[in-house]
Amino acid sequence: MTQNYNHEHYMALALELAEQGRYTCDPNPMVGCVIVRDNEILGRGYHIKAGEGHAEVNAIADALTNTDTLDGADIYVTLEPCSHTGRTPPCCEAIERHNFKRVIVACQDPNPLVGGKGIARLSAKYEIIKGILEEQALELNHAFFYRMEHQRPWVQIKMGASLDARTALANGKSKWITCQAARNDVHKLRLAASAILTGKKTMLLDNAQLDARESNLGFAPQRQPLRIILDTNAESLDIVTEQIKSKKSPLQRTLMISKKPLTETQNAIGLLDTLDLNTKDIQTLLHQLNPLQLNTLMVEAGAALTSSFLKADAVNEIVLYLAPKFLGPTARGLFDLPELKDLPLQNEWYFHHIEIMDTDLKIILRRC
Amino acid sequence: MTQNYNHEHYMALALELAEQGRYTCDPNPMVGCVIVRDNEILGRGYHIKAGEGHAEVNAIADALTNTDTLDGADIYVTLEPCSHTGRTPPCCEAIERHNFKRVIVACQDPNPLVGGKGIARLSAKYEIIKGILEEQALELNHAFFYRMEHQRPWVQIKMGASLDARTALANGKSKWITCQAARNDVHKLRLAASAILTGKKTMLLDNAQLDARESNLGFAPQRQPLRIILDTNAESLDIVTEQIKSKKSPLQRTLMISKKPLTETQNAIGLLDTLDLNTKDIQTLLHQLNPLQLNTLMVEAGAALTSSFLKADAVNEIVLYLAPKFLGPTARGLFDLPELKDLPLQNEWYFHHIEIMDTDLKIILRRC
Repeated sequence: MTQNYNHEHYMALALELAEQGRYTCDPNPMVGCVIVRDNEILGRGYHIKAGEGHAEVNAIADALTNTDTLDGADIYVTLEPCSHTGRTPPCCEAIERHNFKRVIVACQDPNPLVGGKGIARLSAKYEIIKGILEEQALELNHAFFYRMEHQRPWVQIKMGASLDARTALANGKSKWITCQAARNDVHKLRLAASAILTGKKTMLLDNAQLDARESNLGFAPQRQPLRIILDTNAESLDIVTEQIKSKKSPLQRTLMISKKPLTETQNAIGLLDTLDLNTKDIQTLLHQLNPLQLNTLMVEAGAALTSSFLKADAVNEIVLYLAPKFLGPTARGLFDLPELKDLPLQNEWYFHHIEIMDTDLKIILRRC
Repeated sequence: MTQNYNHEHYMALALELAEQGRYTCDPNPMVGCVIVRDNEILGRGYHIKAGEGHAEVNAIADALTNTDTLDGADIYVTLEPCSHTGRTPPCCEAIERHNFKRVIVACQDPNPLVGGKGIARLSAKYEIIKGILEEQALELNHAFFYRMEHQRPWVQIKMGASLDARTALANGKSKWITCQAARNDVHKLRLAASAILTGKKTMLLDNAQLDARESNLGFAPQRQPLRIILDTNAESLDIVTEQIKSKKSPLQRTLMISKKPLTETQNAIGLLDTLDLNTKDIQTLLHQLNPLQLNTLMVEAGAALTSSFLKADAVNEIVLYLAPKFLGPTARGLFDLPELKDLPLQNEWYFHHIEIMDTDLKIILRRC
């Protein structure tokens, strides 16, 4: 077993730990940490919830239940430890209290508040090894990193369709095109998303819940994504109000983007706010949402609204569940895109991930 | 290493050998054979070409260049050895000339002329082990077995489309939607097919060659599929005649299904025949083609003809190359299917195979 194999082995373990925060740590990035000495794992930790202990602090606490001192141990962390005081003290400080031999870091933090400062600070005291499983670590928090770099959420469109790209019959029937496993997976996407955005039509026609349900997840969700409804004249306000009233969970938060101001009653029952963006430009909208710290903004809407996002070049990722059915040319299509007169020379998308999901196919497309 | 591991190991080798006949052995099944004694491989063989040596005969000949006697050796064969005299003498006879210890067979031959008779005959002299890697062996020759059972070819529809299931722009532009790797793969499908069927429109509009080309394959094809053109009034006869004249390869064979009788000149230049099926029923057509011994009948045609095959429930497999593009709702769709008023409760298709092919996705659907 080479030393290099060891690094990858322990970092893979740290990444697995990080992954455990997927449904709870939003809007923070997922981070995992492993402390190792003489090929023995002393401690493990991950970041569970924003405002609570970071991965490093949790791993150190875990290690100190197993040993009196961390002298000479290596600490593996999937993301550069922070050097600033946020809601918790800097992780660098927690690390510096111990005589670690080495600090092994998968990737640098693209957050400008950290951005190499953590590594610089720690390198004064420790040997630093950077870039172990860097690609996986960057992928794990791609949406968080994207927000840091672009000051807007990573936009993910989710659609379910037949293999001839139809989302419903001509008469509107669409329950159920995709299989149960695919529908359950959608609830995991929702739970991992910071927010779900939809349009007025989907609210009026489908009375969409836009939440992640225990019956689909197989476990009880500890948070729910923010719901964002684009509805300039607040025509769906009554439906939204009814929905919020009927929800028992205080975790439901709803933001309506409209020009109509919120009444006190609406505010009292949990309608987060109405936000008059006074813009029809989707790119501007996305930047105006940035203070909400949304990493993944999932769009679950009809062909018209999703097509607006596509036309605005605002979509980073399309998650497509394809059922092995053909609904025929009269059925409703995926998008309302403008007619092409010529074939594009270069692909705009690539297949990032494909997966058989029971009877259906899950495809993740990303922008080239 | 257990004995059972050995069986699977050597049968896997025999299956790999069988696979080497994919582009040459039509209309016969692919068969591979390995002869083993004391964990030493004495001989290998596969069926190269119809009318020439079968796999067993080739493997025995190969083994006898390495050893004087096959006494006590095991013979692994991917398909039950034949007991009848076809174009070559029965393989059972060739095997019986030697004192093999065991005959290990992956699957029984569904050909009614063999159908267990080979195994029965050999079991008089040898210990027989059946069913090693049976599933893989059945899959290898699924089209051949299907023809034996149903007296009609296995129908494979091939299509290339964008992810919104469009095969061409509204103005007809379609070069190229799919990537080079996908287009090259189509030539492998063609070469592996017994015949390629198309319609009058494709011949008139696209002047389709329906052949497997060296430039796409990366090797020189030793045979070409039969070309079948459905053209009741032989409107594409001039184009087809020109095509045949311009072909240098004598391997090109073309069958036109029309009511117009063939002239002597047309026959002389290689137009195989015209076949007046006098039927518009696709299932009947397929059965009438059975004397031609077509295993895989590949349909490469437009939306109308492929849809006729689908509507007639005559399609066993759809090979779909999907490019990560969206061409929009005005572009041409995959099929012209009748409008559905209700969603089907059960899937008609399942994903048999998915594969990323450079930038595109290759999907093989089979009937449930």
